[in-house]
Amino acid sequence: MKRIFEIDPWKLTSHTFNKEDKRLQESMTSIGNEYMGLRGNFEEGYSGDSLKGTYYAGVWFPDKTRVGWWKNGYPDYFGKTLNAPSFIDLGITINGTKLDLAVNKISDFELTLDMHQGLLTRSFIYEGGDVRVKFEFTRFLSVVIRQAALIKVKATVLSGSAKIAVASGLNGRVYNEDSNYEEGFWDALGEDAGARSIQLRTKANNFGTPQFTVLLKESMRENNEKVEGTVKTAAGQLSESFTYDLGEGESFELEKDVIVVTSRDVADAEQAAEAQKLMDQLQAKSFDQNLADHEAVWAKRWESCDVAIDGDPDAQQGIRFNILQLFMTYYGQDPRLNIGPKGFTGEKYGGATYWDTEAFIIPMYLAVAPKEVTHALLEYRHEQLPGAFHNARQQGLKGALFPMVTFNGIECHNEWEITFEEIHRNADIPFAIYQYTRYTGDDSYVKDEGMDVLVSTARFWADRVHFSKRKGKYMIHGVTGPNEYENNVNNNWFTNTMARWLLSYTLERWPLADEAAKKRLQVSDDELAKWQDIVDRMYLPEDKELGIFVQNDTYLDKDLRPVSSIPADQLPLNQHWSWDKILRSPFIKQADVLQGIYFLNDRYTKEQKEKNFDFYEPMTVHESSLSASIHAILAAELGKQEKAMDLYKRTARLDLDNYNNDTSDGLHITSMSGSWLAIVQGFAGMRYNEDGVSFAPFLPKGWTRYSFKINYRGRILAVEVADKVKISLLSGADLTVKVWDQEVALKEGQTKCLKD
Amino acid sequence: MKRIFEIDPWKLTSHTFNKEDKRLQESMTSIGNEYMGLRGNFEEGYSGDSLKGTYYAGVWFPDKTRVGWWKNGYPDYFGKTLNAPSFIDLGITINGTKLDLAVNKISDFELTLDMHQGLLTRSFIYEGGDVRVKFEFTRFLSVVIRQAALIKVKATVLSGSAKIAVASGLNGRVYNEDSNYEEGFWDALGEDAGARSIQLRTKANNFGTPQFTVLLKESMRENNEKVEGTVKTAAGQLSESFTYDLGEGESFELEKDVIVVTSRDVADAEQAAEAQKLMDQLQAKSFDQNLADHEAVWAKRWESCDVAIDGDPDAQQGIRFNILQLFMTYYGQDPRLNIGPKGFTGEKYGGATYWDTEAFIIPMYLAVAPKEVTHALLEYRHEQLPGAFHNARQQGLKGALFPMVTFNGIECHNEWEITFEEIHRNADIPFAIYQYTRYTGDDSYVKDEGMDVLVSTARFWADRVHFSKRKGKYMIHGVTGPNEYENNVNNNWFTNTMARWLLSYTLERWPLADEAAKKRLQVSDDELAKWQDIVDRMYLPEDKELGIFVQNDTYLDKDLRPVSSIPADQLPLNQHWSWDKILRSPFIKQADVLQGIYFLNDRYTKEQKEKNFDFYEPMTVHESSLSASIHAILAAELGKQEKAMDLYKRTARLDLDNYNNDTSDGLHITSMSGSWLAIVQGFAGMRYNEDGVSFAPFLPKGWTRYSFKINYRGRILAVEVADKVKISLLSGADLTVKVWDQEVALKEGQTKCLKD
Repeated sequence: MKRIFEIDPWKLTSHTFNKEDKRLQESMTSIGNEYMGLRGNFEEGYSGDSLKGTYYAGVWFPDKTRVGWWKNGYPDYFGKTLNAPSFIDLGITINGTKLDLAVNKISDFELTLDMHQGLLTRSFIYEGGDVRVKFEFTRFLSVVIRQAALIKVKATVLSGSAKIAVASGLNGRVYNEDSNYEEGFWDALGEDAGARSIQLRTKANNFGTPQFTVLLKESMRENNEKVEGTVKTAAGQLSESFTYDLGEGESFELEKDVIVVTSRDVADAEQAAEAQKLMDQLQAKSFDQNLADHEAVWAKRWESCDVAIDGDPDAQQGIRFNILQLFMTYYGQDPRLNIGPKGFTGEKYGGATYWDTEAFIIPMYLAVAPKEVTHALLEYRHEQLPGAFHNARQQGLKGALFPMVTFNGIECHNEWEITFEEIHRNADIPFAIYQYTRYTGDDSYVKDEGMDVLVSTARFWADRVHFSKRKGKYMIHGVTGPNEYENNVNNNWFTNTMARWLLSYTLERWPLADEAAKKRLQVSDDELAKWQDIVDRMYLPEDKELGIFVQNDTYLDKDLRPVSSIPADQLPLNQHWSWDKILRSPFIKQADVLQGIYFLNDRYTKEQKEKNFDFYEPMTVHESSLSASIHAILAAELGKQEKAMDLYKRTARLDLDNYNNDTSDGLHITSMSGSWLAIVQGFAGMRYNEDGVSFAPFLPKGWTRYSFKINYRGRILAVEVADKVKISLLSGADLTVKVWDQEVALKEGQTKCLKD
Repeated sequence: MKRIFEIDPWKLTSHTFNKEDKRLQESMTSIGNEYMGLRGNFEEGYSGDSLKGTYYAGVWFPDKTRVGWWKNGYPDYFGKTLNAPSFIDLGITINGTKLDLAVNKISDFELTLDMHQGLLTRSFIYEGGDVRVKFEFTRFLSVVIRQAALIKVKATVLSGSAKIAVASGLNGRVYNEDSNYEEGFWDALGEDAGARSIQLRTKANNFGTPQFTVLLKESMRENNEKVEGTVKTAAGQLSESFTYDLGEGESFELEKDVIVVTSRDVADAEQAAEAQKLMDQLQAKSFDQNLADHEAVWAKRWESCDVAIDGDPDAQQGIRFNILQLFMTYYGQDPRLNIGPKGFTGEKYGGATYWDTEAFIIPMYLAVAPKEVTHALLEYRHEQLPGAFHNARQQGLKGALFPMVTFNGIECHNEWEITFEEIHRNADIPFAIYQYTRYTGDDSYVKDEGMDVLVSTARFWADRVHFSKRKGKYMIHGVTGPNEYENNVNNNWFTNTMARWLLSYTLERWPLADEAAKKRLQVSDDELAKWQDIVDRMYLPEDKELGIFVQNDTYLDKDLRPVSSIPADQLPLNQHWSWDKILRSPFIKQADVLQGIYFLNDRYTKEQKEKNFDFYEPMTVHESSLSASIHAILAAELGKQEKAMDLYKRTARLDLDNYNNDTSDGLHITSMSGSWLAIVQGFAGMRYNEDGVSFAPFLPKGWTRYSFKINYRGRILAVEVADKVKISLLSGADLTVKVWDQEVALKEGQTKCLKD
């Protein structure tokens, strides 16, 4: 655990600069606008240890898969998150000395990420003997003109006089740190000194996936007036120089406006013109006006999603940071995009999406963002159905298998036990359709495109099960459950339960599907009968004596013992134990049986929940960032308030406190919904079904108050939990909600106050 | 299936040269002398598709392990079989035209591997319009001076006149075809034009394994007189040129003598002097004398190991080819060496040894070679105990874990489900001690070094098992059995049985160990008691109703069906099915339960053997080259003579008929004992224990006679099976053997004739 930013409700601020925390600082001050994003690298460059990273959404590279021993069905390529051409560079010299915080003496350092504005600022005083210069940097990625980055540097000579040279750069000579042989993945297409632009293309590949072309353009302003410096170019690079001779007290403020367009939206030949058009649009307003527009969008978002916590400033900062980072990664703008595990904050993990999106993020997005945001995420999977059919075919199976890791729908990860065993995703991903439909009450998706997804995955499952003659049951062998600390297990209760759910839900929705969908999908009576038979005779391992569902066939034969029996210096297991020892141990990485109980919460009795929680939680090491929140929610439901709080704490400031000691690689974007879920579904006990929404709130020990807002079927509801519980219908039609066992009828503008 | 050599009892001969079969031809005409070996590449070079390969025993390269996702315990490096500097090169031009069989017109081609001599010859007529030249090449690797290769080319002008230039080369610029980035693994150390030598060293590595230095030296002779040509050198290369102007009917014969020394035996600085010494020794005799010496050694080997088959010339050729290739790979000369899966015939598979040696080759070597050969193989493992301790420690386990793949004892393969799950090897490898002791009657090894191996592996097993409280049994979870078409299974019957055997045998032998060994090993009473408890309470899955041992915990839940239910065009499965489908199928790659019954043959009743064979064999696809022979032996024992013959045929000419369509990569060296085992242990029913040796022969349909010889405790026994069975004691002390249920007492020189 390491905390480098000060506690503040709306800001990440630091007044110290520690070189050894540079990567951590960079991860935490990453900013993005869904279209692109970058780590908190310094504009002037930095010669010390640093991870330079700029990422354009949906721009990736298919890197050759390398494995020790090839097996039929392995994907040909691994989708690599691509470090993209950098546009923030503002190289600076002061009287010939390079500005470089790894080397220079500085004072009065301040670095702030304003979470309300999505704005990054930095200032410090350069101490060059007699010469002291104050530098102030400001930057943001516009959420209004998504192709635009706005960067500003102000320099003020505090003492002495200084000749300050600024070289504004666009730089396509970038590399992935995780590449196998320091390969570059970009080819320069050309530089246009006059237009201040460079164009590049990703290297050719043999996998039939598209090459991407990008064009970066800059234009400089001083006091809102365009200025032009001296331009130099090299392959894939452009640099524009400005020089200032300043006496004491004098200053300059140079603004760098950047436009980035890519072949995802604009054909190669039209990119220059499109960039010019966008630059004109951007420069029709001043920096401050553009910032105000940007901030207004953020303000509107915060209005309907903010969570306020009194009595726990750490928690307050944590939840806002998580919401900010999620929204900077994805807000439904482009249904071709999704939420990668590191978002725009690092290059680790390939692919743009995992099952994390549907399982852990959609439940939050449904409540905090307009329903179109979630709808776009559903569309993403529908668009990728051709890839999913390909994946199933590769395994010799019918129907569609959604990938574990992908950019384009085709599985691109090569770890067998994950890619082709962790197939529970093929029910979890469609489960989002069920969640969307139940929460929004909008069944237009499930009747049409959603039915394509349901039937195609149902066909996969019907082929993937086999019938055990000996047991007279359908079984699913050779899977990895959510607990990735076991693999190739048989009859994982969660996987079997979710596969059965998928078939059952598809059977339930099929008669209600649009005629066009029915015609398109041609489900035969035999198919329906087969699905029903699987639903009726699916094997779901259970131990009646213990009163629990059994994680998988031979789990109970293990040397069962609690995590408390492991010496503290052997935790986390994944850093101390061999993989062999981990796999054979009873210890659980993240919710597995309990994930199923979380998903299908209304199907299990309190006793069932309790017995399973009490059995499995003590053996769970929570070494996935996705684990603690689910457990916190169930603990809260079972009245284990202290346990719920303990678990919540593991998710609330995972990155801010560098809990897993790996935030320097980038943020855990897809885990960021965890603290929201723990508060809203956990502490406040929010549940929903077709008929409505309910709460069962409590106030965690130490907190004096917390409140949050949710979108619900066109309304904004506010919930405040203190010594009393207040529910307000801020906008929208009349609504009755349930709080504990009370029906609370609300009219627009009305607040009701309740006590347990 | 493809056959490119003619049928002949003692020769592989071909009179046609097909370019598309070049790699296959190269594999089959590989020669070796334990110290080094090479594929059947052409001396003059070949510009078409070809796999150039020269290999020096024990000279390897630790290549960086590449995997998608690292796990604790993975080995750092993969031991690569290293393509080594080539010494056969004799580049030839005729009137300026390069001799190149990929391009030139030729006639009267003949290529012969003489199996009795271990000699490779090739001749053809070069047809250059009016100029016709006959070329004859001869080469062998001496089994007398193991560092020596002798190569001869004779050219005779049949018509016209020819200026023939010969460039004899030593070439260290060689590459592995399986390298990741066409990396070279050799650095040139220097060339000595005067001494006709080059010296090279393997590249530096970060893994702390030694770099190897090699020195190659050539010396040319004509008519037994040394001759010197014009020498040119380049880094890592040397070329010596000779020119001949020949009229019609004229010829020359040029002999190339080569010495190869390596840092395994000779320090870098002494290699030049040592090579000179060996060259002098070699050149003290003529080519023909050296060949005669070489052939005499082979003749002696054949005398005590030959198998003769009448009525089936294909089988006759097959068994001799297998014996030849095995003996060219290993004959116990150097206990630091072992038998790699491709021997000296290809670069596929890393490592020098697998469990194949102990499980499949030692049972044959015990009978066909002096006991010292097997003893050297036992010593090899004892020498590598430090590596085995390292392997166990890497997994967080006690004792010693012999590697799946290694050069130096340290596991160097990175496929988790093989390397750290297929641990049955850790009982199979010590099982060779039991076999050696029972066959030879020599218990000196098991009392001393062998006890180190037994106790160290016993300690591993005692830590690797766990106790299932629920079942009150010791279990072994997370293994891969010999059937590699399943992995990460629990309680593989074979693994549990062999682990239990290991503990039980160690307990049995411990009291008889040498005092020094006891003192060294310090086995406590608690340890002995624990081992006994595991022996007593080991879980061995069994199905009483079916009367079978169960392959692993949930095997019987699979969709059980015979191989005959698979459409023929889907076989072999590993070329047609996805890995997912294979893993979940009931189909068995190679003997698993039946391997255990084969190993511990005298512990099971005929009924047990029959029920298990009838249950498992129909589900076995025999897609490992190690499978058919074991099944053939059991089928023979069970009186299923036709089945035994069918299975035998799959092993007898595996490479000669390119049965698996992969012989172009190299020969299946470690499977080559299979046909011998099928004949001797199968058709002739040979068995042995502490008390003696027995036979239960039958004559397979279509054969008129077969005979073989075995070494047995200082004797040579000959067995002939025709319409009658004849047993002869060719040499050695009186012996009584059992044939069927008859006790046959033999004196030296005596033959007894029996009938069933």
